[in-house]
Parts: sequence; structure tokens; C-alpha cells
Amino acid sequence: MIKIAVDMMGSDNGPEELSKGVASYLENNQDVSFVCFGDPDRMSLLKDSPRVEIVKTTQVVPMETSPLSFLRMKDSSMYKALEAVKDNKCQGLVTAGSTGGFITGATMLIKNIPGVNRAGFCSYFPSKVKGKQVAILDLGASNVNTPEELVGFAKLGSLYYKENMGKKNPSIYLLSNGTEEGKGLDECKKAYQILKEDKSINFMGNTEARDALDGTKDVIVSPGYPGNIFLKASEGMALTFSTLIKSAFKRNIMTKIGYLLCRRGFKDIHDIFDYKRTGGAMLLGINGVAVKTHGNSTGEFLYYSLDLAYRMVKNDFVGKIKKDFEVK
Amino acid sequence: MIKIAVDMMGSDNGPEELSKGVASYLENNQDVSFVCFGDPDRMSLLKDSPRVEIVKTTQVVPMETSPLSFLRMKDSSMYKALEAVKDNKCQGLVTAGSTGGFITGATMLIKNIPGVNRAGFCSYFPSKVKGKQVAILDLGASNVNTPEELVGFAKLGSLYYKENMGKKNPSIYLLSNGTEEGKGLDECKKAYQILKEDKSINFMGNTEARDALDGTKDVIVSPGYPGNIFLKASEGMALTFSTLIKSAFKRNIMTKIGYLLCRRGFKDIHDIFDYKRTGGAMLLGINGVAVKTHGNSTGEFLYYSLDLAYRMVKNDFVGKIKKDFEVK
Repeated sequence: MIKIAVDMMGSDNGPEELSKGVASYLENNQDVSFVCFGDPDRMSLLKDSPRVEIVKTTQVVPMETSPLSFLRMKDSSMYKALEAVKDNKCQGLVTAGSTGGFITGATMLIKNIPGVNRAGFCSYFPSKVKGKQVAILDLGASNVNTPEELVGFAKLGSLYYKENMGKKNPSIYLLSNGTEEGKGLDECKKAYQILKEDKSINFMGNTEARDALDGTKDVIVSPGYPGNIFLKASEGMALTFSTLIKSAFKRNIMTKIGYLLCRRGFKDIHDIFDYKRTGGAMLLGINGVAVKTHGNSTGEFLYYSLDLAYRMVKNDFVGKIKKDFEVK
Repeated sequence: MIKIAVDMMGSDNGPEELSKGVASYLENNQDVSFVCFGDPDRMSLLKDSPRVEIVKTTQVVPMETSPLSFLRMKDSSMYKALEAVKDNKCQGLVTAGSTGGFITGATMLIKNIPGVNRAGFCSYFPSKVKGKQVAILDLGASNVNTPEELVGFAKLGSLYYKENMGKKNPSIYLLSNGTEEGKGLDECKKAYQILKEDKSINFMGNTEARDALDGTKDVIVSPGYPGNIFLKASEGMALTFSTLIKSAFKRNIMTKIGYLLCRRGFKDIHDIFDYKRTGGAMLLGINGVAVKTHGNSTGEFLYYSLDLAYRMVKNDFVGKIKKDFEVK
């Protein structure tokens, strides 16, 4: 039986909403159980479920927290969920809560896999090509990274893509401000030199941010700060377009009829950019499955994140990283 | 008479295409003349124009060039156009050519305005709010910037926005990975501290990339590398959406009818994201008006860039920066 810890207090939508995702996941999957941390009175949907253990916690980590404040909140739902993985009571955890708290907690409590010098946030992005996704890391666990850390991200991303997409030798790119070898930040140029000599990695060179989602790339590696800017800029632009498209169709009765005639095509666009289905971001390199889902996750959103955690635990993804990063 | 130098060889579309933009601009504006550098045989449209001087050049700067190679190409259309501004033969220049060559040339030949420690690429971005644009810099003239350079960008951006948009006290934000004061790269945190004490700047704090185009902000400042990632990620996502929207409407006869019913709304979206009209990027801080237009500029595209250069010269924008940056 796979056992996953869930921080029920992290989403803006509250534990009542997240409970729906947990309940629905339990219905569809028999070999999984959950330990849900938070306010029991707000998880009434789960109280009679035989495969849910509810653990009462009294604190909620605020969205903005310092490492020190987080580490003091020992009775918070997030701290307890992380501790459950650290103590091997659960094999993985999912949280929608504070990113800063999560990174601090995961690296300080669960710790990195031996040989991994830095954990990185990795998430799947949609591309122009329907069904084709691209994994990008680090999306902001760090700000600045060393060349060696970037090489580590390339290895972690490659393993992650292989695991999720079943592709043997995923293509790896460095995010840069130009495709030529000499472009980009100094740390990226140094990582480029190491990666191009590394036969274990299918390194293809640099990609510009403009071409990152063209559907020809499998994994893209970046230091955390520009990776985060990439993530948020893409999100912002996608959101802007969605808003504008909706209002273009809602202008009047004629445009509404127009929508009815084209809705299948626009449904496809919606599905391509439905980031719920990506399951959120994995903190790769941590000695346990650690998934961060969106801060305003709904039950449906959480469902996909639980599924990501479940699949990673079931396939012993952490074990595979350990083997790969073993000091030989 | 305003005199502007044009590098006619920089666009992928060739000088024949750019000639159309020059000709059309001359028709609509009487107090401007152009010095066009490049292959005279490929600018036949302009050869009889009384307000065009064609200067033959024999070299074309390739898109990828090192500073040293650029400086050796003394008979290139770009070098000559920059030199014309340096020698005060022209008051501004427009090029669609190599960004690297342009930055090298502008800073080495024309040089920065005294008091400006670093020039920055600044361009207007569309926002969710129709008609509202936001100026963002640096988009990649540098990779890494000092806190003092970021403060300089804030001043330059503020002046530029005031000049273009006629707004007295533009709101200035730092691009960051969180809105709180302590977020972001070290150099940005230090710039934050300086900016919040500077009464000459209407500094509002940090913005995340996701909210950069929400229509509430006037100017956003970033070090060049993440600024470039922001630019290209936004462009990439906008392009992806445009492609998907087009194909959704082109599916079959019904979707084509649907398009006819909603086209006005989608025309509006197209206009909002029509980056031609922004006129390209100004290299702010250079002792002359220096505009970089897109590498695959058409005549129409160039038209807007010529207009940007024309307006900046006409209003003595460089003089205004000089006054503001004067050592007091």
C-alpha cells in the first residue's frame, strides 16, 4: 500500500475543497492511502474513509515565510507532512502551501539524495504540438546556480522525463538568450562545456525562451531565477490570451453563435494549456517524492498532483535517482 | 530638418522591402530626411527621392558577431549608420541588424550619455488593458547588472515613458520572483533599497512576471538576462496562441463561419499584440537616438521604428536624459 502525506491547509480554497480531490482519488485507486494533515473539522468528507488517517495540526504556514519562521512552525500541516516523509511514515507528500516553506522543509528535513548537490523544481509545460510536453527546471527552488548544479539538473530532468514519458534518451537543452555556444550567463556557458562532454546525457545545446515550447524539446535546464521568470511570463501571457479570447466570444449574440461553431478547436486549446493536468511541480533531487501543487488548487487540481506523487512512488523514482547519482 | 541614418541591410527581408517603409514614411512626414546605408542597387525605390541620401557600403554584419569582428567591419551598413550619428551627421539611427553588433557599436562609437553607467534596451509591451502599454528594460543589452545600473534603468525608463506616454510620474517596478521586498536576485534587492529612498522616482516595489502585463504598471526594470528571458517567453507564448487560434478557426467550413461572426473581437486581440506598432527597442542611455527593430522587419515594421526615432529626435529626448543625468 502506497502512503502519501497531504498538507490539507495550503490551498487558498481550503481543506474542504482539497478533500474532494482526495476522496475522488481514493475511489479510483485501491492501493493508496493518505495521511491528511490539518483541521479535522474542515475535512468531514474524509472522516469515514478507511484509507485516510486525519492528523490534527494547529498551525498553517503563511504563503510568505522565512526559513527560520517555517522551522519553528513544528505543528503546521506542512511541517508535519514533510516530517512524515522524513520519518518514512509516508513515501511522498503533496502540498499547495508556501513555496519557500516547502523548499526549506524538504531540504532541511527530508534532505537531498546523496550525490545531488541541489534540488530543482521541475514541471511540465504544454507545447505547440498537441500532447507533447516539455519538462523545465529549475523553476525557482534557487535563484543562482553553479555550473555543477545545472549539470545535476540536466541529469535529474533526463531521468524525470524518461520516467514520465517513457522516452529513452530525452533531448536536453540549456535555456539561454541565444542558440550559439557562447551565449548566456557564465554559469550556463560552463555547464554547456561539461554537458557536451557527458555521454550519459543527450545534450543538444542552447534554446531561446521563444522556442522552448515549440514541441521539439524534451527537457530544458535553467538556473532558478530566470527559470522562474520563464514560468511566470509564460503563465501571464497564457492568462492574458485566455481572458481576451473569452471576452471576444462574449461580445454579443453573434459572437456567441460564432463560439458554438468553433468550440471544439478552442476546447483543444484550453486542454493544451490546462496546467492542472501537469500535476504541479516535483522538487527533484529530494530523498522522497515531494510535489508542490498550485496555491489556489481545487480538488481536481490536487487529484492530478496526488496522481503524480502516486506514480513516482509506485515506480520508485527516488530509488532510480539514487542509483544514478551513486558515487561510483 | 531631422536626419536619420538607416541600416538598410539588417533585415532578413532585404533592403528592397525596407525601402517601402522609408518611402512611405517620407510621404507622410515632410521635415525628415534619411541617409540609407547599403547596396544602392537594392534600393531603387529610393534613388530619386530628394530627401534620401544613399551611401554605398560593401559589408553586412552577420547576425552573430563578436565585438572585435564587428569593429573590424568598418564598411558595413551598420557601422556606417552608427558612425553617422557619432559624427553628428545624423541625429538618430535605425537598424534591424545584429543585436550584438549594434550594442558594441552604439556603446563604443556613440558612447553613453555622461552619468549613464549602462545603456539598456527598452521596448513597449501590450497589456490586458486595451491601449495601455508597459515599458520594460533591460531586455538584453547586458546579462548581469549592478544595483546602480538597475537604478539608472529606472530613471531612463521613467523618462522614456513620460516622453512617449505623456504621463508625469510613471510607476516603476522591479521584475522579481515575488512581490515582497526581500525577493529576487541580490542586485535587485540592493536596487530596491536605493529606489525606495529616491524621491525622483515613483517606485512601487516588485512585480512578478505573471503580473507584468496586467495593465496597472508603467515601467518594469530588470537585469538584462532575465529581462531577455521575459521578452522571449512572452513572445513565444503569444506566438503559440496565435498559431493555435488560427488553426482552430481554419478547421472546416463551420469554424470559418464562426470566425466571420467573431472576427472583430479577434482583430482587437491581433491589434493588441501587434508588436510592429511598438516601433522596436530603444537603446536608452546612448548619446544619440538608437533604435533596434526586429530582425525580420518588413517595410511596415520599419515605418513604426522610423517614427519612434523621429519622435525621439524631434522632442530632443537625448537632451532631456543629459539634463537629468547631469552631475549636479
